[in-house]
Amino acid sequence: MKTAVRQSDLFTKTRKEAPKDEVSKNAKLLIRAGYIHKEMAGVYDLLPLGLRTFNNIVRVIREEMDSIGGQEMSMSALQDPEVWKLSGRWDDEQVDVWFKTHLHSGEKYHGGSQLGIANTHEEPITKLLKGHISSYKDLPKYVYQFQTKFRNEVRAKSGIMRTREFVMKDLYSFNTDEVGFREFYEKCADAYVRIFKRLGIGDKTYRTFASGGSFSQFSDEFQTVSESGEDLIYINEKEGRALNKEVNTEEVIKDLGWDGVELKEQKAIEVGNIFPLGTKFSEAIGLQYKNEEGKPVYPIMGSYGIGPARAMGTVAEILSDERGLVWPEEIAPFKYHMISLDNGNEEVKNEAERLFEEMTERGMRGL
Amino acid sequence: MKTAVRQSDLFTKTRKEAPKDEVSKNAKLLIRAGYIHKEMAGVYDLLPLGLRTFNNIVRVIREEMDSIGGQEMSMSALQDPEVWKLSGRWDDEQVDVWFKTHLHSGEKYHGGSQLGIANTHEEPITKLLKGHISSYKDLPKYVYQFQTKFRNEVRAKSGIMRTREFVMKDLYSFNTDEVGFREFYEKCADAYVRIFKRLGIGDKTYRTFASGGSFSQFSDEFQTVSESGEDLIYINEKEGRALNKEVNTEEVIKDLGWDGVELKEQKAIEVGNIFPLGTKFSEAIGLQYKNEEGKPVYPIMGSYGIGPARAMGTVAEILSDERGLVWPEEIAPFKYHMISLDNGNEEVKNEAERLFEEMTERGMRGL
Repeated sequence: MKTAVRQSDLFTKTRKEAPKDEVSKNAKLLIRAGYIHKEMAGVYDLLPLGLRTFNNIVRVIREEMDSIGGQEMSMSALQDPEVWKLSGRWDDEQVDVWFKTHLHSGEKYHGGSQLGIANTHEEPITKLLKGHISSYKDLPKYVYQFQTKFRNEVRAKSGIMRTREFVMKDLYSFNTDEVGFREFYEKCADAYVRIFKRLGIGDKTYRTFASGGSFSQFSDEFQTVSESGEDLIYINEKEGRALNKEVNTEEVIKDLGWDGVELKEQKAIEVGNIFPLGTKFSEAIGLQYKNEEGKPVYPIMGSYGIGPARAMGTVAEILSDERGLVWPEEIAPFKYHMISLDNGNEEVKNEAERLFEEMTERGMRGL
Repeated sequence: MKTAVRQSDLFTKTRKEAPKDEVSKNAKLLIRAGYIHKEMAGVYDLLPLGLRTFNNIVRVIREEMDSIGGQEMSMSALQDPEVWKLSGRWDDEQVDVWFKTHLHSGEKYHGGSQLGIANTHEEPITKLLKGHISSYKDLPKYVYQFQTKFRNEVRAKSGIMRTREFVMKDLYSFNTDEVGFREFYEKCADAYVRIFKRLGIGDKTYRTFASGGSFSQFSDEFQTVSESGEDLIYINEKEGRALNKEVNTEEVIKDLGWDGVELKEQKAIEVGNIFPLGTKFSEAIGLQYKNEEGKPVYPIMGSYGIGPARAMGTVAEILSDERGLVWPEEIAPFKYHMISLDNGNEEVKNEAERLFEEMTERGMRGL
């Protein structure tokens, strides 16, 4: 679609009512304004206004990931079960969000006909890096993508904030040691702070201590306070940080030197996360580099996720007012909206036409 | 990834050999140069150099689609079987390229638990437009997307030219009458000519008469002459046009007023197609508009496809030489490649650094 567009040319129409089965505020607003279309429960299309907003969010995230040394690529959604069996996550109850599919009967791949449809990419990215990392000189590396994930969500009632198919920005870090890993981890956390600020939800978004898995005491979630959130967080306003429910224990609060009484419980939306993976996947998949002594070592990994559509839904939930959607300038589908109040006056009409032509010529994002 | 990048920072390495099971020239070249990674037969990832090239091709196609009034959107890959049953294509042998999947056991959607994974979008786009088209005043409309299609290809030996998962630019046109439809059809054919010219394969690409289905004598294929092509075409050099195998009959040649003796048989790659759909899908799905007399009428539809990865593979097949890949300037991953032949000379080294900084500051696409 051209940069400047006549509203009357848009193929989408606004509508007075959202579909009856739609319960979330964000989807109701976005459907009524012609930003998205509901294909089925938990599956939405992006219409022109929605796609422009979404692409603006993607641009913001991309700029910040590039600024910390991320290299963009794009991996497939169809996945080979064999690489997932190495980590034990093919049949894992924990990841029973899998959609799986089959090759034609008779056709086999590694002895089977089943294929996975990506719900995440730790295993395949680690396997891919085996062909490109061999020495400590090849590290560190930071690789990311905007790629579609498919998750067989049982509950899908939060509009575009939790869907069965969604684009995820997932970055994976590969470092030789813990020091380098932690340095990048903090750099990425800072980039996340900048991203949520640019998306207009910075003041309501808290870096939140979450459970760290086997390789770290904590992971980090970025939680945006909202009544429509599925999570509960406990905010320490003085520190500008929060805890999630999992780690809201006396022990953790003491470890952090916080005062439990001061914590304020709030519902929140997880708009981003950062997870230390240690050597879990490099060991499972067999990714090694040779250190300065020529000895094989497993790189330390981390994963860093943001879902642009969830961020878009969060902005819709939080910044909209009684008149409807409100977008920060950087992500609005258009920067200018011109309405000709000509009431049949030819002079006014002609001036509006002239201004529209000028917007078009200058490449201004106008509607 | 930033606009200008140090080659030593790229996470990908070149390799001397392609995987043994790789038979196609395009995939061999692209894998060796670090543009793509093979996940499995018919499934490839785009690495940073590959993604940049791919995105440049997408940009060229997008500019040309916007210039003829296309509005970009993005539809889901997960599809509701019900809408496909309306056209009879859910169980159709002809489209046994379906990958299908399931919701969790116990969860039903429209009485079933099966979901389709998109191999094309005629049915869902027609259903979507029902919510936005009601009057002749709402037409014409031209809607397109760059969206991932999944096809259960039995034979997948042409590298990135025929894969089980690929992004397709698919545009759908909706017109009130045949005259408007044909006008747009020719406009889009002209845009395709411009696209293939910009991609550097214009001089080897022929607009080719192909079988038209039930609504038209012909459809159009854009076929690029190449020994690695899967199709056979018959070229009329004088007219600058061709026939495909299906329609290479005495009757058709006579209809066109051509001389059969002059036709030259060539192997070719189908890099684009345009297909008149008539009212097949608007009737099946029940999309109607009210004409000036208030009577319900089925819009006339067309579909217009280009696969950016197939185009990229075709360029790799055709323009590469004995030293490897050759890209036209507009789609090359980088416009400048700087190598410092300093041989330890500090002055040369410093000047190279200065030039790299300048490239970065000016936003030049340099490696």
